[in-house]
Amino acid sequence: MTLTSPETADRGELLPPADPREHLSSPVTRAALRIQQRLLAGAREYLTGAGFAEMMPPIIGPVTDPGIRGSKQVDLDFYGHKYKLMTSAILYKQASLLAFDKIFCIAPNVRLEPLETANTSRHLAEFHQIDVEMAGASRDQITQVVEELVRHMIGRAVAECAEDFELLGRDTGVFETLLKEAFGRRTHADAVAELRAGGHPQNPDAEIDWQGEVIVSEAADRPFFLTDYPKGSRGFYDRESAERPGVLRNFDLIAPEGYGELCSGSEREFDYGRIVTRMRETGENPAKYGWYLAMVREGIPGSAGFGIGVERLTRYVTGLDAAWQANAFPKLPGRVSP
Amino acid sequence: MTLTSPETADRGELLPPADPREHLSSPVTRAALRIQQRLLAGAREYLTGAGFAEMMPPIIGPVTDPGIRGSKQVDLDFYGHKYKLMTSAILYKQASLLAFDKIFCIAPNVRLEPLETANTSRHLAEFHQIDVEMAGASRDQITQVVEELVRHMIGRAVAECAEDFELLGRDTGVFETLLKEAFGRRTHADAVAELRAGGHPQNPDAEIDWQGEVIVSEAADRPFFLTDYPKGSRGFYDRESAERPGVLRNFDLIAPEGYGELCSGSEREFDYGRIVTRMRETGENPAKYGWYLAMVREGIPGSAGFGIGVERLTRYVTGLDAAWQANAFPKLPGRVSP
Repeated sequence: MTLTSPETADRGELLPPADPREHLSSPVTRAALRIQQRLLAGAREYLTGAGFAEMMPPIIGPVTDPGIRGSKQVDLDFYGHKYKLMTSAILYKQASLLAFDKIFCIAPNVRLEPLETANTSRHLAEFHQIDVEMAGASRDQITQVVEELVRHMIGRAVAECAEDFELLGRDTGVFETLLKEAFGRRTHADAVAELRAGGHPQNPDAEIDWQGEVIVSEAADRPFFLTDYPKGSRGFYDRESAERPGVLRNFDLIAPEGYGELCSGSEREFDYGRIVTRMRETGENPAKYGWYLAMVREGIPGSAGFGIGVERLTRYVTGLDAAWQANAFPKLPGRVSP
Repeated sequence: MTLTSPETADRGELLPPADPREHLSSPVTRAALRIQQRLLAGAREYLTGAGFAEMMPPIIGPVTDPGIRGSKQVDLDFYGHKYKLMTSAILYKQASLLAFDKIFCIAPNVRLEPLETANTSRHLAEFHQIDVEMAGASRDQITQVVEELVRHMIGRAVAECAEDFELLGRDTGVFETLLKEAFGRRTHADAVAELRAGGHPQNPDAEIDWQGEVIVSEAADRPFFLTDYPKGSRGFYDRESAERPGVLRNFDLIAPEGYGELCSGSEREFDYGRIVTRMRETGENPAKYGWYLAMVREGIPGSAGFGIGVERLTRYVTGLDAAWQANAFPKLPGRVSP
């Protein structure tokens, strides 16, 4: 099952995906996809049961999520108008709350990640997210949803896919704590301090870098929330704390065992003036966001929500070496493939 | 509920979608989306229960379905390579059979329909399909799947959405025959003969045109399969009859009450030589289909499959005037919208 030794994995070397036939007919791929199918069925079961309505967001539009950590958007021409491929569903999640108070979607996103990420184990140019948004929710309420959702998904996969886990050599005993105990919780500042004390030069004003994420992830025995990111590190839609300016009411969910980030979320900004200010602070031109700002100006509900990376979660659950192994038609940055 | 009188509908005049707030907060939209959510939950329930594995196909790739009836593909740049937005999942459905014998996906497609279709009741530039493919299946077997699937979906929506149907003014008594009796079945040639006898100048070598589709649809009391389209009318992947050259082993499912086509499907071509010949016959350059033809040359399973238009099916079930009313963020040809 293992494509690399731990040593080469550390250096970011990993075999690229095989041709479609070899990849799709591999017992490893089949087992990973079967587990992923159970994870997604579990997600729909939990979310629908909790009253969330499933939406189908667009995949193209005049504007999309700019807060995508160094990757680029894809432009396209829609009857003479410059449109974008969706990098995330965030703008449409907020809009969807005008129809239903609790919504989710499972949708593809495309991000042109830098070429140097093609050999990491976790970057795909095309991937999927489970996106959830809940009107009126606080961060504590939405992290509770994340926790129950992830537990339900993994619980279902563990219960129904024993043979596939066996084939992949993944001991499901590693999920015992996760399935029973509350997820951990620590602040971004706390993680930064620990990383710097340990000799890792983490920038305190930025996202935890990949290397740092692996370090804090490896030290954990179950998933944990990393909260309170500094304002400069995220998109305009993550709400700033009223009590602690410069600190966001947001979070990531970090997997144990070195698998890193599984999910990002936040309470959302919904005030027109503050959104325009935040757009300017993050270098975005508000004039581009016509339909979104027109909607926000008339009023949208306050909310909180999150997005779970389907391939990254599947990689963690299956114990595979790379996120692309959890995608039937993987697209790596810069590489031509189906 | 009614946006047009039958007279203006016949002339293709229809109000365009309102702004996102008005559309999303409209009781009509909410009811239509709730019914659509039950239809899709019913689809997953039926297909998963029948052993179909749910796939997540790409939304971009080097090549996509060319058989899209007069609409155009969207080009985009993927790290210097010319890619396309998916117009349908057909190539990936055939590939997915290398992983699982029975697969389905519910995915977005984008087709730049001609500008003059913006005012019809059934064209969207972005829409969703329930796509199914089954290795080794004959046309009789796959139309049986269509019939059971559609019956299960509608049965579930009728059972669970009484209030929404009431709000929309849709009498669910119209589905009584559909829920009990086998769907009808007639050939393309038979429909052409009837249309021409009735004075409609239907081209016998082409798809049934929109106007003709409305005529045969209005005459029906339940959905029916229209089979055996002439070769020139469809993509290279619809298999030609060995016994009757020039006739395809394919079908459409046509709704009653004038709602027209809900679904297209076929037995598939899987022989490398015949696929290349069919590509040339339909004006496609085989050199563009690198990964697909490489895969086909090594052998893919014979199969049959279909795609159901989610918005069109929802329109029929809800009795709404236009397909865009069944999409949370409708995109009409040529019109800028979220």
